[in-house]
Amino acid sequence: MTLTDFLIGRPLATSEERAEQIGTSAGIPIFGLDALSSAAYGPEAALTLLIPLGLVGSTYILPLSISIIILLIIVFFSYRQTIAAYPGGGGSYTVAHENLGTFPGLLAAAALMIDYVLTAAVGISAGIGALVSAAPSLQSKTLLLCLIALVLLTIANLRGQREAGGIFMFPTYLFLICMFAMIGIGVAKVLLAGGHPSPVIAPPAAPKAIEFVGAWILLKAFASGCTALTGVEAVSNGVKAFREPTVKTAQRTLGIIIAALVVMLAGIAYLVKAYQVVATDPNAPGYDSVLSMLLLAVSGRGAFYYVSIGSILLVLVFSANTAFADFPRVCHVIADDGFLPLSFANRGRRLVYSEGIIVLAVITGILLTIFGGVTDRLIPLYAVGAFLAFTLSQAGMVAHWKREGGAGKFGNMFVNGLGAFVTGTTVLVVLVAKFMDGAWITAVMIPALLSIMYFVRRHYDYVREQVKTSTPLDVSNLRPPLVIIPMPQWSRMAKYSLRMAFEITHEIRVVHVAEEDRAAEFCGLWSHLVLEPAAKAKLPAPELIQINSPYRFVIGPIVDYVIKTANENPGRRIVTIVPELVERKWYAYFLHTQRAALLKTLLLMKGNHRISVLNMPWYLK
Amino acid sequence: MTLTDFLIGRPLATSEERAEQIGTSAGIPIFGLDALSSAAYGPEAALTLLIPLGLVGSTYILPLSISIIILLIIVFFSYRQTIAAYPGGGGSYTVAHENLGTFPGLLAAAALMIDYVLTAAVGISAGIGALVSAAPSLQSKTLLLCLIALVLLTIANLRGQREAGGIFMFPTYLFLICMFAMIGIGVAKVLLAGGHPSPVIAPPAAPKAIEFVGAWILLKAFASGCTALTGVEAVSNGVKAFREPTVKTAQRTLGIIIAALVVMLAGIAYLVKAYQVVATDPNAPGYDSVLSMLLLAVSGRGAFYYVSIGSILLVLVFSANTAFADFPRVCHVIADDGFLPLSFANRGRRLVYSEGIIVLAVITGILLTIFGGVTDRLIPLYAVGAFLAFTLSQAGMVAHWKREGGAGKFGNMFVNGLGAFVTGTTVLVVLVAKFMDGAWITAVMIPALLSIMYFVRRHYDYVREQVKTSTPLDVSNLRPPLVIIPMPQWSRMAKYSLRMAFEITHEIRVVHVAEEDRAAEFCGLWSHLVLEPAAKAKLPAPELIQINSPYRFVIGPIVDYVIKTANENPGRRIVTIVPELVERKWYAYFLHTQRAALLKTLLLMKGNHRISVLNMPWYLK
Repeated sequence: MTLTDFLIGRPLATSEERAEQIGTSAGIPIFGLDALSSAAYGPEAALTLLIPLGLVGSTYILPLSISIIILLIIVFFSYRQTIAAYPGGGGSYTVAHENLGTFPGLLAAAALMIDYVLTAAVGISAGIGALVSAAPSLQSKTLLLCLIALVLLTIANLRGQREAGGIFMFPTYLFLICMFAMIGIGVAKVLLAGGHPSPVIAPPAAPKAIEFVGAWILLKAFASGCTALTGVEAVSNGVKAFREPTVKTAQRTLGIIIAALVVMLAGIAYLVKAYQVVATDPNAPGYDSVLSMLLLAVSGRGAFYYVSIGSILLVLVFSANTAFADFPRVCHVIADDGFLPLSFANRGRRLVYSEGIIVLAVITGILLTIFGGVTDRLIPLYAVGAFLAFTLSQAGMVAHWKREGGAGKFGNMFVNGLGAFVTGTTVLVVLVAKFMDGAWITAVMIPALLSIMYFVRRHYDYVREQVKTSTPLDVSNLRPPLVIIPMPQWSRMAKYSLRMAFEITHEIRVVHVAEEDRAAEFCGLWSHLVLEPAAKAKLPAPELIQINSPYRFVIGPIVDYVIKTANENPGRRIVTIVPELVERKWYAYFLHTQRAALLKTLLLMKGNHRISVLNMPWYLK
Repeated sequence: MTLTDFLIGRPLATSEERAEQIGTSAGIPIFGLDALSSAAYGPEAALTLLIPLGLVGSTYILPLSISIIILLIIVFFSYRQTIAAYPGGGGSYTVAHENLGTFPGLLAAAALMIDYVLTAAVGISAGIGALVSAAPSLQSKTLLLCLIALVLLTIANLRGQREAGGIFMFPTYLFLICMFAMIGIGVAKVLLAGGHPSPVIAPPAAPKAIEFVGAWILLKAFASGCTALTGVEAVSNGVKAFREPTVKTAQRTLGIIIAALVVMLAGIAYLVKAYQVVATDPNAPGYDSVLSMLLLAVSGRGAFYYVSIGSILLVLVFSANTAFADFPRVCHVIADDGFLPLSFANRGRRLVYSEGIIVLAVITGILLTIFGGVTDRLIPLYAVGAFLAFTLSQAGMVAHWKREGGAGKFGNMFVNGLGAFVTGTTVLVVLVAKFMDGAWITAVMIPALLSIMYFVRRHYDYVREQVKTSTPLDVSNLRPPLVIIPMPQWSRMAKYSLRMAFEITHEIRVVHVAEEDRAAEFCGLWSHLVLEPAAKAKLPAPELIQINSPYRFVIGPIVDYVIKTANENPGRRIVTIVPELVERKWYAYFLHTQRAALLKTLLLMKGNHRISVLNMPWYLK
């Protein structure tokens, strides 16, 4: 246990829970990292789609970013009200479930779960990808580095949130400081230069335009840019984790996260247009990220550049942490409703939902391994889940307002309805545009996950029905059980087991599976060792059953005899006494045959409810 | 079980054992493959050491080979008499153990076990190495191919010996035919050419001599050439596997193996001298094996060449099979004497010692992985074990003759003494010459293995002492046990467990670990559900114990309560009833909490001999 204590900390009591809850400054890195880090790939994703437009492309980033910011603000107000309406947390699942019904709720939950897995996988792979492009000698170790990062994140999260928040606070704030500094210096330079700044290091010249501006390309660019919104739902899922006053703290945290994101999106768009930055093809040599080009244009290749790039790398890897904070919570809420195995609802020794963390880590590890830790291959699977959950959550809020009514009913319905419409449209656009590239995997996974959820729920309902009773104890016709004792030879264990059998019943059968000619020896001693003492004490004689085994197995014949006896004595309870040699040393497993364990397992698997096992341990001194 | 049946065959009864036993023609591939395949590397190992002598080297192969053949014949007669003296098998271990004592016996056993692991590893790596040099595109897959070969060999051996013999018969006889054909054609050509044949494809010219002939270099070459002897002990270990008349069949098999090996060693030496073949450096480019050069000189690069090279590859990989036939047998004999875990002595479903096969496969797999499947790195570890076992076995036979006496006593003692002396010298030479290259690993492993053996034996002696008794059953002061039932809620399982408790005792304690405020609900129902029916039946009332758990665990408090109760009731037996929901579906493991299993395990680990567990299964319909 010492190693476990060292890695994930001492167990925490439920009464220590309050101390684990977090404030705004810790909440921003924990629940905002995913949303904030989106600034590092959202604008770039939109600009990459505008490459065919040439230099004209960079002029369209401003209206696109304004639309995205408006959408972001709509989503913010929606989630702000969700937090107030649902202070217990649960986010999209709870909202969709309570307002639209079970199926939309589970659909939102499945979408979110898949999205969190991808948040973890993409965050880690993008971060390691950036690290690897900074240090090309590590290229061949990409997957290994991804898995190491995954293990470190998992351990950090199994230790509990406060410490996790502490670990992630530094890179998040460093990232925000760097971005704000870049935007501040950049905007000042642009204004001082009258709108035509001269870059310190100029971005590459824009390629020749090969397409004209059209509605379809702008819609696609808008849809891709919307990946900047992934992660904003995190706060609403985790409201419960915040310090009192819970709702206010959570809303303030969400507000700060959204405001910071808006400043970054607007600032980046403004600078892209002013410095005439056009995205470079990520699949071609000479690729440079938009943020890197902006940093070079504003400040050149100095210490600030490297610190900023470093903070981007860290934030991308740690953005995966949002998934570790929220995936287990979503699983917990769904498990509480019986749609996932109950073990997801059990808190571990550090007041975190350990099983959810471990399942997320395993699935993320599998995804990273399959896709070789390469972000580009994972991206098409991403965003579908997030926007599906947004849509369902906001549609749920529309139903909520409709039902609740009150002042501003129609205004609220309009805001959420608009959000639902725009995010719903985005889901369709992303699905169509990226279907063949991998979105189909998400489209297949969501119904698969839904099937599992319904199956689990049906199974639990069935078990509850089978186990449930309200009738009192029945003590009619009590009768001591029939006891069966396997006895390979006369030993202290055998003697002790037989004595124990006499303490609970008077009907005892001793089974001796004969190995060749040793049976005679045992039976010769039977009268002296057992029958005489029993007769002297006026106890009924145990019956000796000899079984000849043509195979070298002894377990099988014993199991068969127990089941046969149960069938021959209908309504009778059969207790099989299994003596077991126990040694409290790690090497004991290798030295002793595992016959007792095997016998117990086989009786459990092949037996029926009348056959029980009495396990008698015998300890070596 | 269908997959197991398919892979390793249906279970065989002990009565089917005779049918599994083998004759001469099947015995040669099974027990001779290792010895026969030595012809492919023994002469080459000697010639490689003679490279510094230049062309003069090839003239010394004849006297060296004659010495090795004489040694081989001495060893043959020794083992021929060992087979007759020990028809039960056991080989070097049995002979050394019975005649020299326990320690020399175990030393021989440890040496043999390590040697078998290396036989398996070297056989596989040499075979795959040859395959890979024939198809260089597979070079990067060397280790993977080695492990695939290992898995196939393991499965073949788990199926049982007769089939294993069938699989290996073809390559062994093909190899013998090719070698005999090469020697026959070669010798005929030499004789027809009056001792100066003209090679079809001439071997490379001999390098200039850079050393003079000396006693040390010849001794080293002799020692290396002695690797041709590895594997000749196999038959004596496996005498029991042969068809009746067991001893005669085994002796005939050994005789044929040795005769074939002598013909090959003599023929190869004769042709090497006649064609003036000098070994090439295996670490330098342009390396060609001695057998390959001989085949090219005798017959050119035709179909016969490729068939012969192919048979060499197959025989090398399959020579590992000798280890699979003998390693488990040695483990079995030693386990029977209590020096290895008893599970090595249990026959599996196909009348083979499955555990020995699996352990060999695992250790071989580890060795191959550590050394990357490269023969050259494994070779220095090899041969020490084999020759140490030879030495001890032959020394044991000296003691045997001395004790037994009879006609020819001194002649027999001289033959075995000579063998012991020469093989003992070889052990020392190999150790000194290859110590730094890896022989030290073997030198460390043998004492480590010996320590394990003595530890295991001491442990079993200790256990036997603890368990042994010859006193009869004691039925004085019988008293029904105190029964404890953990009960999280009222259910069919709880009701059934409580009824079972009343059938074996009248003193029952029900433990309810309260999760927050649910305790009150349960306790409110207690009187109606349990106390009233018990009172009506005039049974003593079960005692309700409520435990408040500040942690989210329920198992820990139950275990603590059981142990506390046992301590408060000295001399009293405590039975804990553990109800367990059983579902015979693979996915059940994921859906149900493993609390019952955890409780059982913790009670076993933390409890004492007075605390036993009554496991009550509840089956879902």
